[in-house]
Amino acid sequence: MPEGVDPAWLAPAALRAVGSRRTLIRGSGPLVETVHGEVAEACRRFGGRVVRDASDDGPYDLALGLGTEGPELLGEEGFTFACEGGTTTVTACGGRGLLYGLFHVVRLGEAAFSGERSPQTHRPALALRMLDHWDNVAVHPVMGQVERGYAGGSLFWEDGRARGDLERVRAYGRLLAACGINAISVNNVNVHAAEARLLTDRIGEVADIAYALRPYGIRTHLSVSFAAPITLGGLSTADPLDEVVRGWWAEATRRVYEAIPDFGGYVVKADSEGQPGPFAYGRSHSEGANLLAAAVEPFGGTVHWRAFVYDHRQDWRDRATDRARAAYDHFVPLDGEFAAGAVLQVKHGPMDFQVREPVSPLIGAMPRTRLAVELQVTQEYTGQQRHVCWLGPMWSEVLRFRQERGLPVGEVARGGLVAVSNVGDDPFWTGHPLAQANLYTFGRLAWQPDAEPGEVLDEWIGLTYPEASERLSAGLHSVLDGSWRTYEKYTAPLGVGFMVQPGHHYGPSVDGYEYSPWGTYHFADRDGIGVDRSVASGTGFAGQYGAPWAGLYESPDTCPDELLLFFHHVPYGHVLKSGKTVIQHIYDTHFEGVEEVGQARSVWASLAGLVDPARHARVSERYEEQLRGAREWRDQINSYFLRKSGVPDSRGRRIH
Amino acid sequence: MPEGVDPAWLAPAALRAVGSRRTLIRGSGPLVETVHGEVAEACRRFGGRVVRDASDDGPYDLALGLGTEGPELLGEEGFTFACEGGTTTVTACGGRGLLYGLFHVVRLGEAAFSGERSPQTHRPALALRMLDHWDNVAVHPVMGQVERGYAGGSLFWEDGRARGDLERVRAYGRLLAACGINAISVNNVNVHAAEARLLTDRIGEVADIAYALRPYGIRTHLSVSFAAPITLGGLSTADPLDEVVRGWWAEATRRVYEAIPDFGGYVVKADSEGQPGPFAYGRSHSEGANLLAAAVEPFGGTVHWRAFVYDHRQDWRDRATDRARAAYDHFVPLDGEFAAGAVLQVKHGPMDFQVREPVSPLIGAMPRTRLAVELQVTQEYTGQQRHVCWLGPMWSEVLRFRQERGLPVGEVARGGLVAVSNVGDDPFWTGHPLAQANLYTFGRLAWQPDAEPGEVLDEWIGLTYPEASERLSAGLHSVLDGSWRTYEKYTAPLGVGFMVQPGHHYGPSVDGYEYSPWGTYHFADRDGIGVDRSVASGTGFAGQYGAPWAGLYESPDTCPDELLLFFHHVPYGHVLKSGKTVIQHIYDTHFEGVEEVGQARSVWASLAGLVDPARHARVSERYEEQLRGAREWRDQINSYFLRKSGVPDSRGRRIH
Repeated sequence: MPEGVDPAWLAPAALRAVGSRRTLIRGSGPLVETVHGEVAEACRRFGGRVVRDASDDGPYDLALGLGTEGPELLGEEGFTFACEGGTTTVTACGGRGLLYGLFHVVRLGEAAFSGERSPQTHRPALALRMLDHWDNVAVHPVMGQVERGYAGGSLFWEDGRARGDLERVRAYGRLLAACGINAISVNNVNVHAAEARLLTDRIGEVADIAYALRPYGIRTHLSVSFAAPITLGGLSTADPLDEVVRGWWAEATRRVYEAIPDFGGYVVKADSEGQPGPFAYGRSHSEGANLLAAAVEPFGGTVHWRAFVYDHRQDWRDRATDRARAAYDHFVPLDGEFAAGAVLQVKHGPMDFQVREPVSPLIGAMPRTRLAVELQVTQEYTGQQRHVCWLGPMWSEVLRFRQERGLPVGEVARGGLVAVSNVGDDPFWTGHPLAQANLYTFGRLAWQPDAEPGEVLDEWIGLTYPEASERLSAGLHSVLDGSWRTYEKYTAPLGVGFMVQPGHHYGPSVDGYEYSPWGTYHFADRDGIGVDRSVASGTGFAGQYGAPWAGLYESPDTCPDELLLFFHHVPYGHVLKSGKTVIQHIYDTHFEGVEEVGQARSVWASLAGLVDPARHARVSERYEEQLRGAREWRDQINSYFLRKSGVPDSRGRRIH
Repeated sequence: MPEGVDPAWLAPAALRAVGSRRTLIRGSGPLVETVHGEVAEACRRFGGRVVRDASDDGPYDLALGLGTEGPELLGEEGFTFACEGGTTTVTACGGRGLLYGLFHVVRLGEAAFSGERSPQTHRPALALRMLDHWDNVAVHPVMGQVERGYAGGSLFWEDGRARGDLERVRAYGRLLAACGINAISVNNVNVHAAEARLLTDRIGEVADIAYALRPYGIRTHLSVSFAAPITLGGLSTADPLDEVVRGWWAEATRRVYEAIPDFGGYVVKADSEGQPGPFAYGRSHSEGANLLAAAVEPFGGTVHWRAFVYDHRQDWRDRATDRARAAYDHFVPLDGEFAAGAVLQVKHGPMDFQVREPVSPLIGAMPRTRLAVELQVTQEYTGQQRHVCWLGPMWSEVLRFRQERGLPVGEVARGGLVAVSNVGDDPFWTGHPLAQANLYTFGRLAWQPDAEPGEVLDEWIGLTYPEASERLSAGLHSVLDGSWRTYEKYTAPLGVGFMVQPGHHYGPSVDGYEYSPWGTYHFADRDGIGVDRSVASGTGFAGQYGAPWAGLYESPDTCPDELLLFFHHVPYGHVLKSGKTVIQHIYDTHFEGVEEVGQARSVWASLAGLVDPARHARVSERYEEQLRGAREWRDQINSYFLRKSGVPDSRGRRIH
């Protein structure tokens, strides 16, 4: 790890179990060298020994090797793990599999070397486990360097170009490999002028980054502008059916692969929030995506085409238009029209990464299209890495969601699981040290979407604090485990969403997006609140689901409490399944949320002395801000609804 | 006028009456040369003739000359005007007086040369008539180059330094002299790092600007940072009672006057919205101001010390603290403690340039202090020069306001009338061509605070459109004359204020400042709205006034309708003096305001062909935006209050 940088979930002692043993490594290739380097470094530190390709049979405590059997079973990334007769064995068909096997052993620690375990097969559920970095090369005047970034500047870009020193990028790749991530898009989906040129004359800078990430099995992708043939190529059109345009993309892509033979492909935000796209030429999104797919397919690349398409110039007076419907309405008619090299990348919810949304009905509604599901690890709407909000339980709910005759989301996402990264050049990687848990959890859920998030959290604790006392582990678990529900309590209630300060999205503003063009409304009046998205009387969004959800969501009687205001406009006196009225629920959860933050802060304070002082201080400082922020949320939300509804708190607490 | 720049209220033909006659000029000095240059240029264009210091008696149509009689009557800036026996005569004691006399003749046009008029004396009511430019030398990342500027970049600064070409600055000085302005502060009161250095090593750039403005009788002032002894001087303190600090200011000021012998003095925003000030050293504002006064007094300079001091980190939950009280509470106890060279510069209202505020009670409450009154010509809260909002009537109301035993504000302001400029490097000077009328009106009201604003408007029309048909003049008058009341109608009602988008302050956001730290609240709930500032039950602000206002403002029964919500929290059903309820007033005025904008737009459209096409097009384009904006205001305000109050519009109009 570079000096001054937090080791995150590869604390040196996390490799003690491996590093203090005798290890045999068999096989060759760049990733086998990475595996060897990891083990050798651990042995140097902890006194073990590593042997390459020995002909004898040991005795070895750990044997890591490439085998030739079972590639159809294991693929490039899977491995078998066994512990038999005193030797722990990891066998893979490819270098990546071996690397993931090594980190599996690291996660198990001493447990990897005890007892008898017959061979188990491990392989990722999803072939693509990707981070999208919304990093700008040049600092953007409004968005800064990392759009929606809360951890300093970009890891990749500095002073308008790729960092010369790639040691930090390499360390990042190592962390990502240890949680199973295998792809990165290195620039913002909003492609500004400087960033557009990464595709052409500045591809060398991308190649440098790819070079640093490659030893950890990570392929590099690039966000591109659909208008590139015009802005970069000097053509008069970017029409996807124009032969010259197709030729331009083919040639540009050939040059990209010349520079980066294992290039992953393109990410495209088209006809979305002002970005150019195929609509300008009367073409469909599939025609747009297939243009780029045709360019990358010959090289084994993929186009990630984002489905975040909606009218961001909506008239708030118009209650018929519903942004939640937009992705489904735009894309379902195109099912079957996307090329094999195109992946449709769908946000997990129909709106935009709120603390609570239903699962996007588009997921599962396009059986003939490769879908990727996009999560947001960066905490745009969930506390911006100043608040603790561990999102594992939310993502797990999403990934396990299924319609009556369908697969769970984690299996529908054949095109992969993608997340917007929360990492920057901050010494703790993520600003808030506890936000590292989100990144780790994302990687592990992408590998195994039905994993128990609480177990993943404990893995993260074990790797980050490898010699933690029981008290420390329990403390860490307790401040993270319920933090998402706590955050939900003190912010926007019952699925209503978007009660945030416009623009930067930090802190409360109940009406901040109420009269805006962004399609984000709650319609609170003196009598009630919520958006009627029923088929019977509302926007019809509920009808985009299959059974049983369409029916459950359709009626306020069956709609789950936590999504009630997303689907229905109800009076403040409406009684929830919990037995409380909506208004009393608002008051109670906001008081509770602040109390829970105060409790977490106390737990954290009690861990002083058990945690590295710099890390402890950073988290303590952020808890002060979280508590201040939670109180502000509580008081603004409660005051707003008391003033509007006139209903007093049944418990007589102070509302301003 | 430089090429491509709008001539504003010195349209060439405005000088026809002078330029087509025989003029004698007597006297010498730089400003007499300016007068001569003006007349000679007009004669060149219109065929007249100008003679210098002739010994014969004519015949001359116009005699402009310096006299030796009556300096105690006329001062440096006054003049006598007469029209007797076929000759029009202007006599002054000083060059400025002669220049103002010439522009008086220009304003009168042909009327200056007809009939018999016995000598009239003209002199300004206020000795200081000043514009504060909130211009940054360097472009500020948030505020841009001109803070609250809506007319492009700075006239004075470009690419981080003073403009090399000062032709535009000279043309600006000419326009200002023609409306009577005699002082300019050339940089923002929020003094950033680059701008701080104008005081010391960059004073030469200020001297260049002063050089360009001097021929038009305009003195140059500078905004300085109270922390300059630390940030520029390397001292460890800026304590106003520290001898080393006093010495530093004395020496710095000596150098300023070396570079600019007629330098006007300093403008200071101290202990205000984060700017440094004397509070850091436990010193009072008078001690702070007197420090700087002592430095400039030996040279005849003045310190303008802004009274805009309040807690900008207020807790919205705290209803006892009232920002409106702050200036009075801070400064009245200091009455009599300010040095002769210090002027306390007070915003005209107690808050911040809202479309409707009461007059600040501080004005009139400090009889032993020189006060300047600050207006805002730049339309920060009044449409940002995208909306027509001619502020003459509002300023006139302020300047005529008086307490029972006091003088009107226009006479209390012995320290001058100051305004934040609305000018930038836009070809039309003010972005919106009709916003020029605000700048002209400000200058004329500073000269004569009890002038009829409607007559000043007609002067502006006559000078800007000197050969206008009756229809054009009437059309221009009609679109401007009522525009302030129209703007008030469709924005924040009944004096409530601050229902604007946070930050940039353009467009509506009813709750935008409701839960903020800025001390700007309306406290609307389902039952009523407004801020109780009575003595009996509120913050006590009403008690800061003398008779009769304290009594009138104290009760909702006697408080003027237009200020009702500034002083009282009332139910939506409260009946105004107009006979309407508050809620119906809100609905009605918002519908009316939009209709009035539509009518003004039509009037403007009907003037096509009578107005220079570029000017007509610019205004037309802005009317589109004004109409869009007015509708947005109407719909958001009406929807907000319908949702909150539940009271339907009595006329059944559509509210969303």
